[in-house]
Amino acid sequence: MPFETVSEMRVRYAETDQMGVVYHANYLIWCEIGRTDFIRRAGRSYADLERDGVRLAVSDASLRYHASARYDDPIRVHTSLSSLGSRGMTFAYRIVRADTGALLVTASTALVSITTDGRLTAMPAEVRGWLASAQGGAGAGGAHAE
Amino acid sequence: MPFETVSEMRVRYAETDQMGVVYHANYLIWCEIGRTDFIRRAGRSYADLERDGVRLAVSDASLRYHASARYDDPIRVHTSLSSLGSRGMTFAYRIVRADTGALLVTASTALVSITTDGRLTAMPAEVRGWLASAQGGAGAGGAHAE
Amino acid sequence: MPFETVSEMRVRYAETDQMGVVYHANYLIWCEIGRTDFIRRAGRSYADLERDGVRLAVSDASLRYHASARYDDPIRVHTSLSSLGSRGMTFAYRIVRADTGALLVTASTALVSITTDGRLTAMPAEVRGWLASAQGGAGAGGAHAE
Amino acid sequence: MPFETVSEMRVRYAETDQMGVVYHANYLIWCEIGRTDFIRRAGRSYADLERDGVRLAVSDASLRYHASARYDDPIRVHTSLSSLGSRGMTFAYRIVRADTGALLVTASTALVSITTDGRLTAMPAEVRGWLASAQGGAGAGGAHAE
Repeated sequence: MPFETVSEMRVRYAETDQMGVVYHANYLIWCEIGRTDFIRRAGRSYADLERDGVRLAVSDASLRYHASARYDDPIRVHTSLSSLGSRGMTFAYRIVRADTGALLVTASTALVSITTDGRLTAMPAEVRGWLASAQGGAGAGGAHAE
Repeated sequence: MPFETVSEMRVRYAETDQMGVVYHANYLIWCEIGRTDFIRRAGRSYADLERDGVRLAVSDASLRYHASARYDDPIRVHTSLSSLGSRGMTFAYRIVRADTGALLVTASTALVSITTDGRLTAMPAEVRGWLASAQGGAGAGGAHAE
Repeated sequence: MPFETVSEMRVRYAETDQMGVVYHANYLIWCEIGRTDFIRRAGRSYADLERDGVRLAVSDASLRYHASARYDDPIRVHTSLSSLGSRGMTFAYRIVRADTGALLVTASTALVSITTDGRLTAMPAEVRGWLASAQGGAGAGGAHAE
Repeated sequence: MPFETVSEMRVRYAETDQMGVVYHANYLIWCEIGRTDFIRRAGRSYADLERDGVRLAVSDASLRYHASARYDDPIRVHTSLSSLGSRGMTFAYRIVRADTGALLVTASTALVSITTDGRLTAMPAEVRGWLASAQGGAGAGGAHAE
């Protein structure tokens, strides 16, 4: 069974727009929160990785909007790693309303490993190692998240 | 030649992140600015359409990130209408640095026409009419934008 | 002892800027989260109040920045009600790093009660009642928050 | 007559919230745009200053909200320098609707000069020099802005 993390949050007033729903760009921010939680759970925090010179930059993103989230809704972001290479990886996200389970958004983002001055580079073997373990179904500690 | 609008802006400090570049979700906001300018140029302002009960909601979005924009860079968003149906349309965007012409992001967003309570509905014939004219290469006034 | 709520969150990557710290406007969003939690704890959710036609609009805000929050820092927002009138109220906020306790920002925001079309109006007596209880040191259930 | 810059923009859809008006934190972003234009006009771009190691961090902010801006409204930010010291300065802002002249927000932000690692430091004499000229009523070129 694939390793998956679940991130929880409530919709902020600032995230709504005048249509009365969450502004569509904000789901990418929630995906980033999901990815951050996934990486932390799989091995080490991304904040920590950046301090070691690792940079992961988004190279592609796609989102499909199924239903709208509204102010104060409890949200759940399910994050998994759908592919992993030496210089990058792709995450998949399923964003649902936590109380009803209604599907809101499905998304994926491809990330590439870059140097601090922006050139493509291979990820450190250690990082790739624990990401591969997570993709295979086991986190750093071998347990299923959440 | 397809109708295209060009929107110009400068990168705001608030739009950068700690990687020193524009945070990736913000390009969707720039696409919205491009779309707003396109619609205004093609016929009537979207603000005006909303007052008449027309709602266009994003149903799909995809972005490819080619290079990074940085604080204070002059930006140009080229927007065109790539497809048009009775209940929706797809816009295509090309975001470049205005001074060097460097390509930053290509993107597309599909929009659907909904009622004020969120159900799919056909767009008013008038709106579809001037969007079709714009797609065919002529704005409301028949002129090429910008 | 004054009623106070404590809201917890982690700094999002999207909230940083190229100075490597949280962009200063984002603290106002965290204040809103604190206020939302305070109101929910004091009586009913603000989402619920809005559905009943109550609107609270920010009329004044002031912030003092003591130290910078950084990506992934655990944050705590302490929110209390510093004054309450028939048509408005003032909230005070103390934002700290949850792990070190370091003070980041102190802030206050004044809110006014408005109708759905934007005119000043008195708050419903029920709402004012439970806010007064909260200010006096007791939430809806009489208990101290968190 | 005091030197003042005028920055123009249109309200973005992303800047609205479900109350149908601009979310209150976004005015701080507009103040930053005003400040950026002021600094550029007074001497050199802030982007340029940062490359030379100058950092100006917001230490205090206060805003008074008089009326609401709405989607697509044309906005004008009037920015002036209200005080200047060796280690900091205070800017004042008046944000109005460009078409009607209606006053929306008045604000001020204090900024301090810091080193790249966050300690207080005196501003370079050159920068303080042209800011003093601007405060006295003359920009770098001696002309009144806009």
